[in-house]
Amino acid sequence: MTLQQDVAEATTLELDRHVFHSWSAQGALKPLVIAGGSGAEVWDEEGTRLLDFSSQLVNTNIGHTHPKVVAAIQEQAAILPTVAPAHANRTRGLAAERILAVAGEPFSKVFFTNGGADANENAIRLARLATGRDKVLSAYRSYHGNTGAAIVATGDWRRVPNEYSRGHVHFWGPFPYRSEFWSATPEQEAERALRALERIIEAEGPGSIAALLVETVPGTAGVIVPPPGWLAGLRAICDRWGIVLIFDEVMAGFGRTGDWFAFQNPTLNPDGIVPDVITFAKGVNSGYVPAGGVIIPPALAAEFDTRVFPGGLTYSGHPLAMASIVATIDAMREEGIVENARRIGADVLGPALRTLAERHPVIGEVRGLGVFWALDLVEDPATRAPLPAAETARLKAQLVAAGLLPFVQDNRIHVVPPCIVTDEQVARAIAIYDAVLP
Amino acid sequence: MTLQQDVAEATTLELDRHVFHSWSAQGALKPLVIAGGSGAEVWDEEGTRLLDFSSQLVNTNIGHTHPKVVAAIQEQAAILPTVAPAHANRTRGLAAERILAVAGEPFSKVFFTNGGADANENAIRLARLATGRDKVLSAYRSYHGNTGAAIVATGDWRRVPNEYSRGHVHFWGPFPYRSEFWSATPEQEAERALRALERIIEAEGPGSIAALLVETVPGTAGVIVPPPGWLAGLRAICDRWGIVLIFDEVMAGFGRTGDWFAFQNPTLNPDGIVPDVITFAKGVNSGYVPAGGVIIPPALAAEFDTRVFPGGLTYSGHPLAMASIVATIDAMREEGIVENARRIGADVLGPALRTLAERHPVIGEVRGLGVFWALDLVEDPATRAPLPAAETARLKAQLVAAGLLPFVQDNRIHVVPPCIVTDEQVARAIAIYDAVLP
Ligand SMILES: Cc1ncc(COP(=O)(O)O)c(C=O)c1O
Ligand SMILES: Cc1ncc(COP(=O)(O)O)c(C=O)c1O
Repeated sequence: MTLQQDVAEATTLELDRHVFHSWSAQGALKPLVIAGGSGAEVWDEEGTRLLDFSSQLVNTNIGHTHPKVVAAIQEQAAILPTVAPAHANRTRGLAAERILAVAGEPFSKVFFTNGGADANENAIRLARLATGRDKVLSAYRSYHGNTGAAIVATGDWRRVPNEYSRGHVHFWGPFPYRSEFWSATPEQEAERALRALERIIEAEGPGSIAALLVETVPGTAGVIVPPPGWLAGLRAICDRWGIVLIFDEVMAGFGRTGDWFAFQNPTLNPDGIVPDVITFAKGVNSGYVPAGGVIIPPALAAEFDTRVFPGGLTYSGHPLAMASIVATIDAMREEGIVENARRIGADVLGPALRTLAERHPVIGEVRGLGVFWALDLVEDPATRAPLPAAETARLKAQLVAAGLLPFVQDNRIHVVPPCIVTDEQVARAIAIYDAVLP
Repeated sequence: MTLQQDVAEATTLELDRHVFHSWSAQGALKPLVIAGGSGAEVWDEEGTRLLDFSSQLVNTNIGHTHPKVVAAIQEQAAILPTVAPAHANRTRGLAAERILAVAGEPFSKVFFTNGGADANENAIRLARLATGRDKVLSAYRSYHGNTGAAIVATGDWRRVPNEYSRGHVHFWGPFPYRSEFWSATPEQEAERALRALERIIEAEGPGSIAALLVETVPGTAGVIVPPPGWLAGLRAICDRWGIVLIFDEVMAGFGRTGDWFAFQNPTLNPDGIVPDVITFAKGVNSGYVPAGGVIIPPALAAEFDTRVFPGGLTYSGHPLAMASIVATIDAMREEGIVENARRIGADVLGPALRTLAERHPVIGEVRGLGVFWALDLVEDPATRAPLPAAETARLKAQLVAAGLLPFVQDNRIHVVPPCIVTDEQVARAIAIYDAVLP
């Protein structure tokens, strides 16, 4: 396909050759065409429907083309789609108010970005400038975004070819099923992971560490629900040494775990600790318009009352994005969408996945809550050796053929439908997983 | 204003206290409220109109609420606002096709981002991985965005508090009016700036340098139109040493200079040289939906045919953004909007600004082309000492009071209306500048 050919005649896959795809080798791509969607379903150009149990990149928490959010975008587009960040705009103020209302005390200001990576960039910037320190601690099992500091804060392999930002130190977080600490129980895993983290902080020098950046529930790394004691332990460590505690809630936030934010979940966080900074994106508006941001408490905001905050971007607080945030949060409240995610997780999806695991020994562990689950697939339940990549790729293709759009990552299937998923859709999906899994 | 108060009763400025603003001290902000806009005008909540000669952050090239772009956004929102980057989507393929058609030979692929900063991040990533080298050279007088690598590539003061990315070296580009090279003519300025750059490359070690990242026409730094010989000289230097030449056309691209890209302008680039990589954002869709990207030639794309490109973001190739790109480029073509920008610059705005300068000795220099101009304000035309900040701030307030939304940066007024500006609107704006300038 060349540009000279008539574009109207080109197929979508021909046109797609003009696109350089992320996180891929470009040579052998065979992307799925997706043309439209509604609720928990998407369809291709022939109208073939798939049940979307990926929520795309775990972002369409409210489902596809939610009518209230679509209407808000349509309305704002005609009034004023874009405005410079320096000006004031009512829709932006309302979006910040909605976000602060669900974040709760003590947060007082929102800095808006275009996505999760730049949210973390600016959270890191705030922490470095407020503390006057350089290093950022984050987990090996983490994903924080693709820009300069965010990708080096990321712990997985994608960090390595991108290591051009300095002052990043990585640690192992707790992972009871695949422990790095020879621990026997989740409680012991939390204790040992905290002890290991403290040792790294002592060795790096506490006074050199600006921030501890952690996903409240590490998502891409495997929906690793933190064991009891972990979050409170992080809070105590940061308090002791004046380190800024940043919870990355980009994937976990806005309903995914069955709460507005994962740290608000009483099981994950029985002590009710609060981070210093929250970063968000994805679920805040289900990604209908690119948006993310940083939620800031008064003490940290005050650091920049008289001193210039040296960060910004053209589309900070973009009205179209802001309108979609206001409509999303309002619809989620009015329609009890967060509550639905919690109920589905506790009463429908969680139990069904556990039953599935009993029938399929390839499922080594079922982890999760709300609409945020992982099936950890193993060659052998005894050794917990991960299922080889070729086999998970085959399962992925079979799930698609059976009518389900899955989220497959390494040796895992992440079961991450939208928060609006119904009991009937869960039942359909479970039947498909059941039919496809060995 | 607390969250407990009724939000409906809060004024926009009260709500704005929930917003943490970019590049500012938060304590004493007095933002202008902007509620709506159309074409080259915006208005506040009382309906008071301002002629928008800022294009916000020099991004609304097509003007505010262009009906074709608004309609495309409204339509796509109802079909599918968001889809994961791994899938194929026709609107995304069409957007890439449109961009490649205006970029011309030899470009073959587009990597989409959310804005300009992440476009530069990914251009830098491409260059570093393709060359296996680390250092990025960029100008002191430059702005490339706020994320980890983009902000350190930036040359102005905003780089300094953010210097956490390594491998960045800065140089002085040519600036005939405020030369660092004691040169007498623009030609000599280009020659000497090239010589100085070559000396830095020799001293840094050519084999350590991945990329040369330059704004084709440095924008934020003062609309510094490059003197004859500069662009061709950069091309020759990069060819000699296997350095990837990246033109940042985030602000200069998509009509601003009176061409689709500034490097396509025969006056700026009589030799018709072509960069290795182009980054864009802003004008590509006038910022109606956050979007940016990297335009890549076959040779560089091929580096990642079998090797994974380790970069990506949730909203890469976002359908809503893509729909706005297709509609923007189509409308700009159908309505001759780029040609209008060229004509306005050459026949209307340029001559009028030069006449203005004759009447106001505070204008030390008029620079620019298309709808991309700067008035360099001086205390004294002989010494060229910049006008003090307090005086430019006062002028800014007076321009707003007189009905014009200006773009004021350091000691300069950037005259940057949308590309759709009419002769009559230029005349109105010139009358306002004339009345306000001392
Ligand atoms: C926890 C977390 N943080 C940050 C990001 C980066 O967000 P974005 O892709 O919008 O830059 C992601 C994306 O998956 C994420 O899951
Ligand atoms: C030349 C240039 N590059 C990059 C950027 C950064 O773009 P963004 O603010 O969308 O990240 C800008 C923004 O003004 C710019 O003018």
